Amino acid sequence: MNPSQAPKVVVIGGGTGTFTVLTGLKNYFKDITAIVNMSDDGGSTGVLRDELGVLPPGDVRQCLVAMSESDQTMRDLFNYRFEEGTFGGHSFGNLFLTALEKTTGSFAQAVKTAGDVLKISGHVIPVTLTDTQLVLKHTDGTKTVGQHAVENTHFESGGEPALALEPKATLNPAAKAAIEQADLIVIAPGNLYASLAPTLLVEGMGEALRAAQAKLVYICNLVTKPGQTDGFMVHDYVREIERFIGGQAINCVVYNTRKPSRELLEKYARAGEYAVGYSPDVFKRSHYEAVGDSLVSDTIPKLSAADQLIPRTFIRHNSDKVAKAIMGIYFAS
Amino acid sequence: MNPSQAPKVVVIGGGTGTFTVLTGLKNYFKDITAIVNMSDDGGSTGVLRDELGVLPPGDVRQCLVAMSESDQTMRDLFNYRFEEGTFGGHSFGNLFLTALEKTTGSFAQAVKTAGDVLKISGHVIPVTLTDTQLVLKHTDGTKTVGQHAVENTHFESGGEPALALEPKATLNPAAKAAIEQADLIVIAPGNLYASLAPTLLVEGMGEALRAAQAKLVYICNLVTKPGQTDGFMVHDYVREIERFIGGQAINCVVYNTRKPSRELLEKYARAGEYAVGYSPDVFKRSHYEAVGDSLVSDTIPKLSAADQLIPRTFIRHNSDKVAKAIMGIYFAS
Repeated sequence: MNPSQAPKVVVIGGGTGTFTVLTGLKNYFKDITAIVNMSDDGGSTGVLRDELGVLPPGDVRQCLVAMSESDQTMRDLFNYRFEEGTFGGHSFGNLFLTALEKTTGSFAQAVKTAGDVLKISGHVIPVTLTDTQLVLKHTDGTKTVGQHAVENTHFESGGEPALALEPKATLNPAAKAAIEQADLIVIAPGNLYASLAPTLLVEGMGEALRAAQAKLVYICNLVTKPGQTDGFMVHDYVREIERFIGGQAINCVVYNTRKPSRELLEKYARAGEYAVGYSPDVFKRSHYEAVGDSLVSDTIPKLSAADQLIPRTFIRHNSDKVAKAIMGIYFAS
Repeated sequence: MNPSQAPKVVVIGGGTGTFTVLTGLKNYFKDITAIVNMSDDGGSTGVLRDELGVLPPGDVRQCLVAMSESDQTMRDLFNYRFEEGTFGGHSFGNLFLTALEKTTGSFAQAVKTAGDVLKISGHVIPVTLTDTQLVLKHTDGTKTVGQHAVENTHFESGGEPALALEPKATLNPAAKAAIEQADLIVIAPGNLYASLAPTLLVEGMGEALRAAQAKLVYICNLVTKPGQTDGFMVHDYVREIERFIGGQAINCVVYNTRKPSRELLEKYARAGEYAVGYSPDVFKRSHYEAVGDSLVSDTIPKLSAADQLIPRTFIRHNSDKVAKAIMGIYFAS
């Protein structure tokens, strides 16, 4: 196949779920563009934003590593977290992007240079270059400010949380162009309100997705998040995502049909997290196709002491199974 | 010229003087190996050694940048110092080497990988892989421990300071091989007691230099250091270096004959530093050749606020003039 005719795949998201999808897809598709959440303000990323006034490097770093074709040494380096002392908890890849933003004067250029160093096989594009924060507006007029704070908030039950970006963030023109030219667009699994919402709420994103020629596929989460998506079924996730997009733009949802092991489920249940359910009856009345498959990973990932991944990511998508499900959808259409 | 027949040049040292020599030589010689001081424990390097137990990255970083053939972006990145916050004063290149030592488990491998990323045109070799410290033994039985502390000590006047490495450090076999195979060996200018001494005192270094087939050239310092080399003339530097090497191994000394501007000299005199003098009469009776030339830089380097270079480096060797002097010596022999 002529490389210029290789299908153009866009993956939208940020965090572990996006890492998983990219890791799988890069074995099958040659022209992948990741459009990455830019509202992260927790952990290492939050300290760098606060102290050095840079744009958030964390989610971009994960996408760069996922798409890297360089040897394991460089990928290990970018994922390395200092374990102690002044730098304890900081990701080296975040420092790399931060120092590059300072020396080049541009986060977009920093991402491009880091991509060259990591020999990535596609493109990583920040969803916006606006320095912005996720804000949750409560019904009593108060606000919770920042992605990390929103992630740790229990919502008023049953409502549709009122989320916004402040200041208003505009879609990176490079992201807009990638969506326009895409042959397939995938929304990766991830924290619905604290990670997907701030990516989809960027001004111009909804319009771009609604206008896109490509099929829009959403990979649904595996477990619910207590205080935020309790009792959510697959179609609830789709409904909320389409609320952020501003229209019925999703063409296909991919969901997991295989139960994780009882041991893992019990562990999750203790934390108030449950496997996401699904209703074939609801799917039959929906405007979107629903593809169920065994998507869960059999292995429990080993986390280093310094790795700040949160416990719920113990149940993870199997990157190859997800990629094959996406392949099936793309080549069937 | 067949690359395998290109003259093999070894440069020994660490710090700004070595950076200058390498920057000049790389335009004329294709096969350069820098053998680098490993006893630095000041500033960013000292904090990383203390907190993370790594080998000192600072001098190696400077040599890597000097020999880099990559574009300005990567060299700027490696030299970047964080200006504020948690990371204030830390060099990004130091963090790069530290994180690589942690992920690869070996400082030697870290230097090699960093060299690949920076596309260096030769080799950078730590003089030793022993975690060691420079120690100054006073005549009263006390000790000053650490390169940074030694650098800031005023010596007993007229003596030959008793310096040692603790624990004993052994010559990196790769450094030994480079010296054996060299066609030309250059000892770069630098702090005599706190930078050259710990490089030359590594066990096996003196023996290797005395046994080397190559001509051994020493580029003498431009100014004296108060409390350490007051009143030193060029032949005094040579004498002390040969004391560390353990024999009359120097074949040629290159010294500056051009006075720096009065403005600069006055600035230095206020700090107790004076241009290094030289005596043609002494040279006539010496076992080494002495080559005097105009070697001083006309421009005053601009230092960033975060750059921790110390004031005396305002008077610097001109890298191209030094390289041309070395070329003249090599091709005349």
